[in-house]
Amino acid sequence: MTSPLFPRVTIIGLGLIGSSLARCFRVDASLAGHVTAGDRSQAVCDRVLELGIASAATTDLGASVEGADLVIMAVPIGAYADVAAAIGAHLKDGAIVTDVGSVKQAVVRDVAPHLPDGVHFVPGHPIAGTEHSGPDAGFAELFRGRWCILTPPPGTNGAAVERVAELWRRVGSTLEIMEPGHHDRVLAITSHLPHLIAYTIVGTATDLEEHLQSEVIRFSASGFRDFTRIAASDPVMWRDIFLNNREAVLEIIQRFTEDLTALQRAIRWGEGETLEALFTRTRTIRRSIIDAKQA
Amino acid sequence: MTSPLFPRVTIIGLGLIGSSLARCFRVDASLAGHVTAGDRSQAVCDRVLELGIASAATTDLGASVEGADLVIMAVPIGAYADVAAAIGAHLKDGAIVTDVGSVKQAVVRDVAPHLPDGVHFVPGHPIAGTEHSGPDAGFAELFRGRWCILTPPPGTNGAAVERVAELWRRVGSTLEIMEPGHHDRVLAITSHLPHLIAYTIVGTATDLEEHLQSEVIRFSASGFRDFTRIAASDPVMWRDIFLNNREAVLEIIQRFTEDLTALQRAIRWGEGETLEALFTRTRTIRRSIIDAKQA
Repeated sequence: MTSPLFPRVTIIGLGLIGSSLARCFRVDASLAGHVTAGDRSQAVCDRVLELGIASAATTDLGASVEGADLVIMAVPIGAYADVAAAIGAHLKDGAIVTDVGSVKQAVVRDVAPHLPDGVHFVPGHPIAGTEHSGPDAGFAELFRGRWCILTPPPGTNGAAVERVAELWRRVGSTLEIMEPGHHDRVLAITSHLPHLIAYTIVGTATDLEEHLQSEVIRFSASGFRDFTRIAASDPVMWRDIFLNNREAVLEIIQRFTEDLTALQRAIRWGEGETLEALFTRTRTIRRSIIDAKQA
Repeated sequence: MTSPLFPRVTIIGLGLIGSSLARCFRVDASLAGHVTAGDRSQAVCDRVLELGIASAATTDLGASVEGADLVIMAVPIGAYADVAAAIGAHLKDGAIVTDVGSVKQAVVRDVAPHLPDGVHFVPGHPIAGTEHSGPDAGFAELFRGRWCILTPPPGTNGAAVERVAELWRRVGSTLEIMEPGHHDRVLAITSHLPHLIAYTIVGTATDLEEHLQSEVIRFSASGFRDFTRIAASDPVMWRDIFLNNREAVLEIIQRFTEDLTALQRAIRWGEGETLEALFTRTRTIRRSIIDAKQA
């Protein structure tokens, strides 16, 4: 029997992504020899052991990473600095630390200072998820056919990057290497703005007079429903994403608002040609997405 | 054999909705004895006959409604006044005219003046659709399990309303009667604003620098993709909806913009509690939609 890709793995944070990875390790023994779960919540630790998706689980994050060859941080981004401070001194020489956060510049800023020399930090971001949260929400197929972006800082050990890349490939993802700032700008558009807009529109509906609100729910299938699914994602995770990708998100909100204002004006003044021209243009980008097999 | 619900039906406009209804009539002979298609486009008429979803098809709208017991207008709302003017003098006494438009006050305004006394006008709106358009896009199951809203003006013949309601029930829809102005306000929130936002965000992405745009397409699965589907809907249909539900749409855009500005400010000033509170609140409306079996 060949040895696993990583003899000992610790996953910190057993939410949707962390518990999905734990399930990947369970179904494919070639990935990890031994999997430990570290989570600040005793309830989550208990549940992880009940589900049988890790061999050990502890709320003591420092202890959880002792001897680990790979540590995967899968907590909300706002908790990264604390987690990194808690585990830094317990990491073994040559360990690889990676993460799954949706923002990458802030992660490098918060985590790197706490890691001792000889530990390799390979920030990562699987472009995968659902609107569900917690250790019960995960599933091993989550990463199949999806992208995973790695954003190693300059000078990162190439072999460490390659081992993390290999892990993602084996759970079914396609790899992409990107500069952290570029990642944050792309994701601000493809993910952070859409989520913010969805949260906003659902919030606007929540503030409606009560009789109107019940009708909005009944007739939600006409477009609104798609936004509510996105706006049901984990609140703490998203709070931290917006706080930690502030510049890129504010820049894209600004562009969006300008464009919305232009449409609002066209509606007010009855400028049908302006509306039709935009609505025709947006059809072509949908076609590109279908052609790129991302639909 | 019992006689059909409507001996002679004419559908004007054989797009997604019109051609779906035509297919309903084909699969359930109890609905209509004879189905005529009226469409300004000769190509659409030819295609309708090729598809075998109507017994006759003509670009002469006046001729198409001769002898019809039911006329269904399924064209973009901006064409309603012209269509009503073209068919008015050809409608037989006692004929019922209905429609499928997403705005109802403007429809009553544009259509009613052209209809002779003795013709019953029962405006309707099936809450159903896809992002695809044209006579090939339709399918008979489109209305199954969906809502259909009727907005008969005060004084409309009750028997005529009931026959139109029965048609929608038989194609699988659940009926709702609503005042036209109320319909327009509810739909501005559940449908028109979501579409406008989706068109805007996709437009914002379309304007990006080219290298960024290709990455937006590649990584669209992280949220953006859901918006592109909505923003691929028929441009002319949507242009006409916004132009004809101006007041309600402008009012809800205004509320939305205020809410987005508040979130933008919270991000700028790092007010995590404001963000988390909203993101938690929006989760409950998703739960309501799931409970209402509209998810």
